[in-house]
Order: sequence, then structure tokens, then C-alpha cells
Amino acid sequence: MFHAVIMAGGTGTRFWPASRAARPKQLIRLSGERTLIQATVERLEGVVPRENIWIVTSRSHAAALSAQVPEVPAENVIIEPCGRNTAPCTALAALHIAWRDPAAEMICMPADHVVSDAQAWRDLLLAASALLKTPGRILVFGIPPTRPETGFGYVRFGPQIEECNGIPVHEVEGFTEKPELDRARALIEAGNCYWNSGLAAWSAETFLDAVRTHLPELSRGLEPVRPVIGTDSYDEVLTRVYPDLPSVSLDYGILEKVPSILGLPASMGWSDVGSWSALPEVLQAHEDSSVSLGDSLRQDSSGCVIYSPDHLVATVGVQDLIIVATDDAVLVCHKDRAQDVKKVVEELRRRGRTDLL
Amino acid sequence: MFHAVIMAGGTGTRFWPASRAARPKQLIRLSGERTLIQATVERLEGVVPRENIWIVTSRSHAAALSAQVPEVPAENVIIEPCGRNTAPCTALAALHIAWRDPAAEMICMPADHVVSDAQAWRDLLLAASALLKTPGRILVFGIPPTRPETGFGYVRFGPQIEECNGIPVHEVEGFTEKPELDRARALIEAGNCYWNSGLAAWSAETFLDAVRTHLPELSRGLEPVRPVIGTDSYDEVLTRVYPDLPSVSLDYGILEKVPSILGLPASMGWSDVGSWSALPEVLQAHEDSSVSLGDSLRQDSSGCVIYSPDHLVATVGVQDLIIVATDDAVLVCHKDRAQDVKKVVEELRRRGRTDLL
Repeated sequence: MFHAVIMAGGTGTRFWPASRAARPKQLIRLSGERTLIQATVERLEGVVPRENIWIVTSRSHAAALSAQVPEVPAENVIIEPCGRNTAPCTALAALHIAWRDPAAEMICMPADHVVSDAQAWRDLLLAASALLKTPGRILVFGIPPTRPETGFGYVRFGPQIEECNGIPVHEVEGFTEKPELDRARALIEAGNCYWNSGLAAWSAETFLDAVRTHLPELSRGLEPVRPVIGTDSYDEVLTRVYPDLPSVSLDYGILEKVPSILGLPASMGWSDVGSWSALPEVLQAHEDSSVSLGDSLRQDSSGCVIYSPDHLVATVGVQDLIIVATDDAVLVCHKDRAQDVKKVVEELRRRGRTDLL
Repeated sequence: MFHAVIMAGGTGTRFWPASRAARPKQLIRLSGERTLIQATVERLEGVVPRENIWIVTSRSHAAALSAQVPEVPAENVIIEPCGRNTAPCTALAALHIAWRDPAAEMICMPADHVVSDAQAWRDLLLAASALLKTPGRILVFGIPPTRPETGFGYVRFGPQIEECNGIPVHEVEGFTEKPELDRARALIEAGNCYWNSGLAAWSAETFLDAVRTHLPELSRGLEPVRPVIGTDSYDEVLTRVYPDLPSVSLDYGILEKVPSILGLPASMGWSDVGSWSALPEVLQAHEDSSVSLGDSLRQDSSGCVIYSPDHLVATVGVQDLIIVATDDAVLVCHKDRAQDVKKVVEELRRRGRTDLL
């Protein structure tokens, strides 16, 4: 059976003041009527049965998260005792899935991305599910790049080797970590380079084999957990072993090391919505090239990003501003400075304003 | 006895979203801890006894206003059935005051101005009170201009004729209505021209005499009111006659017509705080030349005007913005466009957003 693992551990300080410690990015709605986690779960409908949807999150967000996606069974919400990057998180999920269904295939995905073409996404999931019927395969999904982004890693595809569900399947030639701008430009010009989306798929056992081979410390560290899944001692064992696991990413620890990976181009209107300035990627622009979620009234204004679910925002004679209004805080930030929103959060922390964090 | 009349009929759409139909400018706090009306009443302390303080306002604002200044006796709150500009408003107040105290002197002032030097203001009041011991005098108060403002009228002082309480007293040579910029510059260079502050003082009977002479229609229109003050039929009579009174200003209808007026320079840190862009006149500037009322956190920002009594406002990389946050609306406006805030209010009216008006 095909399972989906949604990694929902992020905090997202760049979306302050909408995102808070108790309400991270994946729990807020950045586009449309649903929060990012709700949209992520909904996109799996018709392809992955609900009982095969898993969410890995932190203890502090589990309750809020379950409340938002009650359709995901409570026993499928896996709680990390602490954050240990994506490789341990995925390995823990794989252990749970293999315990339930030893022959399971699984696809891992972040909880906080936006996909505008849900049909293309489902086609991709079906292709992945079909391709994984052949044992031992590891799949990654490359987003066709639209700009020389320096904030993403890249994956380089080789020649097409087959086609599945109308989607070309390539050999992966290699990965590039977040590049400098010149290098990013060169990668895009090369034509066979894609953004590394953070999506990957395999059978649970293929993945656990890869962990044994390439991250033996992680594999050994998790050994005490496997036999206690489903028992009363699970929580105690996990809480004991998890903090000592190596903190390593899926990309660095596994994907860049396994000898053979298949790559599928994923043209599905994807955005990681990494900061407020990415909102124009996921919201329909107004005539003045502003985008807004919530009520707004713009006079002689253009290029603004307005996020204000519960307040009216009025602008007069301003350009290229990010304006975010919540019940207790307002952010006004130049669009070029969206990355510096996290500095505001740092400053609030320094000032002891935990009520606003 | 010396009485003070506070004219509190204004609406102040230029202070949206802080000011609303039900909460006009004089009822909000633009500087310090008090609202403008509270500060106006407090400034009279020690000079005008509470029972001699009068407020003229509209029916819709009377309750909120009385709640803010409970020290003003309820019977001193005069309600205009409708707005008819400052001459009828002052005449109505003069009738009430003369009925209570036929020998009263009175000073009229707007409710929504800021005075930073309360001692200078009290000195001025004492001088006015002393000067009015000589019957028949009419006093105006000129603000020393600091810029060629085109939004105010000007009053031209002649030679000094005496001094009172340390304040020079001039003959007034004439008035100039709101000038063009070139004319305003010339007036300032002339040196003897002051901003017309809207403050004026006289004895109640001197004023009512002037109304009889220069605004006979107003005088006749109010005739039925005088004999019914303090009786049960007052409300009915006032409601009947007031709407038919000529709508005319004190300046145009009286001050520009009487043959002899005395002028006092009023150096008391006065500001009419006519729009959000005037807030720097009444709030202490931060190092980045921004001013703020309420919590703010400004990064690489300068020259901003932030009004947010109950919300934190954070800014990153912005300049010269007016940012106003209330519980249901946020305004972000370039500082040069403060006058256009009223267009936002007009647009909200067009959209039927009475909840935000």
C-alpha cells in the first residue's frame, strides 16, 4: 500500500506576526480557505487512503494540528520528542509504517508547501506509486525552476529512461546544495537542473536499508524503538533515544549518497512560500499588482502583499510593502526585506515579548 | 466671571481609522494619556472653575463626551440639534452663559487642538480675563507661524498698544482667509501675521451685540430660544429653530466685520493636529525621527508616524509612512498623502462599510 508522510515540524518565524511559536506556518492559511496542513492533506484525497496518511510533528503542535485535520487518524500522528532534522524524522515514520504494513511504499513531503495544480500532483503520486512496485527504487521530484533561486538546493537530471502515467522518468546525476547566484544562473541555463522540492518516495524497507548503509549511527540509535512500537513502553524508549540521534537532513544523509535515484519533473504549480514576499506566487494578483488575503482598500498603491484575515487594511500612496495585520500585532515591511522578518522575532525575544512570539 | 466654551462638534475623517463617526477626533487620544477633549478641559484647571466650563456638541457624541469629562457639569453640555458652523454654535453658548451670568466673559476654543505649554496657555487665559474687564472688547489669539501653511487663515496684528500679564496686546489690522502658498510665504515674511487659531474671547453681551449688528438673521433666528432656556420647552424650541439658522463661521460672520479687535500672540506650543502627518508636532521623536503612540519596533526605518494604542507595530526597511492600527482596521499611508485619508473614508462609505465609518 502507498503511504504519505507529512513532515510538520517547522516553526516559520518568517511569517510573523501570523505565525507564532504556538501557530507555525503549516497551521496558518496563506492562500485560499484552508491552512497549509489542511491543503496538504486534502491534496492526497483519492490517491492515499486516510489511514495511510501520517504526520510527524512536535509535542507542542500536535493538538492544534490534529484539530485542523481530524480526518488523519490520531494513531498516525507521530510525535518527535525534539527536532532532529529530516533523516531521523523520516526513519521514525518508516519504522511506524513498516510495523503496520511491511510491504508499504511511502512518499515524504513537507507540510508547508503550496501546490496549485492538484490534478498534476495526483498524477505524480500515482506515477510514484506505480514506479515503486519495482523493489529498491528511490524517487525524487524536481520542480522546474522559474528563477535562479539561491535559497533552494538543485537536483540534476540525466537522460529520460522511461515514462510513467505520462510523466518522464530520469536518472538523477547529482545534487547541488544552495548555490551562489552565478552558479544558480548557470544551473538554470544548463536546462536539466530542477529545484529540490524536499519530496522523496521509496518503500519503507528500501529506505530503512539505505539508513542502515549510509547513516549507521541513526539506524543503531533507532534500534530500541522498532520492537516497542505499539507497546506501552514506546513513549519512554523514544524519549530516551531520540535526542541522541544524529541531526542530519534527508538530502545530505541519504539522497546524495545512494548510488541510484530516479527523478521525476514535478510541474504542479509548486511553491514553498518561504516568506511573505512569496505570497504573489500563490494568490491571484489585483490590477494594481498587489495581492491580498482579507479585506483591503488600496488607493494609488501597487505591488503590495497584504495579509489580514480579520482586519481591513487601507493603503494610500504606497508601493511594494508587505502589510500583515493580526489581533495583536502589525507588520509593515519593504518587499525586498521579507527575510528580515525573523530579525523582528529575534528582537521581540530579546525584549521578552513572549506574548508576541 | 470668566467662562470657557469648548466647541466639540467635529468629526475628523482625516484621523481614520482611529476616528469614527461615533468617536470623532476630540474623543481620541493623539498624544499623551488623555483624549483631546480631556486635555482641553484639564488645561483650564486653576483658571476657569468647572461650573463655568461649557461644551457644545452634537446629540450623537454627547454621552461619550460626558463620560470622558465627568468634571464638566451635565447642564453645561449644550447639544446642537444639527451642525450650523461656529457663529450659531457660539451664539447659542453665549445665550446660555448670559442667562446664568449676565456679566460673564467667555473664551471660545476648539476641542481638538493640542497645547504643549500649559503654563503659557494659563497666562494667556488670565490676560484675556483681565483685558475683558474693560467692556466691549473682543480678543483674538494669533499663533506665531512656523511654516507658510495654506490650511489656516491668518490674522494681521498692528502696533502693540498695551501689555497684560506679560503678554503684548495689539490692534488687529485684518484677517486673511486660507492663502495660496506664495501669499502664505509673503504673510510670514511680513512678520506681523499670525495663524488664526480659532480662539476668541469677549463678554457674552458684547458678543450677542455683535451678532445683532453683523448677523441679524442669526440673532432673530435665536430670539425664541433665549426666553425658554431652563424651561421644559427649550428642547422643542431649539430643535425647531436651529436648523433654519444661517450656517456661518465666527471668523467670516463676526470677527472680520467688527471695527475693533485686540490681538494677543499665543506662544503656547499650539497645534491643530489637522491630520496624521501633524503627529510629529505633538509627540517626542525617536532617534530614527519616527514618532509613535503605542508599542513599536522599527528596523532600518525612519520618519514614520505610528499610532497604535493597543497593538505592536513592527516595521522593516520603510520610510515616511503613517501606520495606524485599531481593532478592526489598519491604515498604511505615505506621509505626503495624509490629506487623502478622507478619501479612504469616502470609499468605505461607497462600499457600505458602515461598520468601519
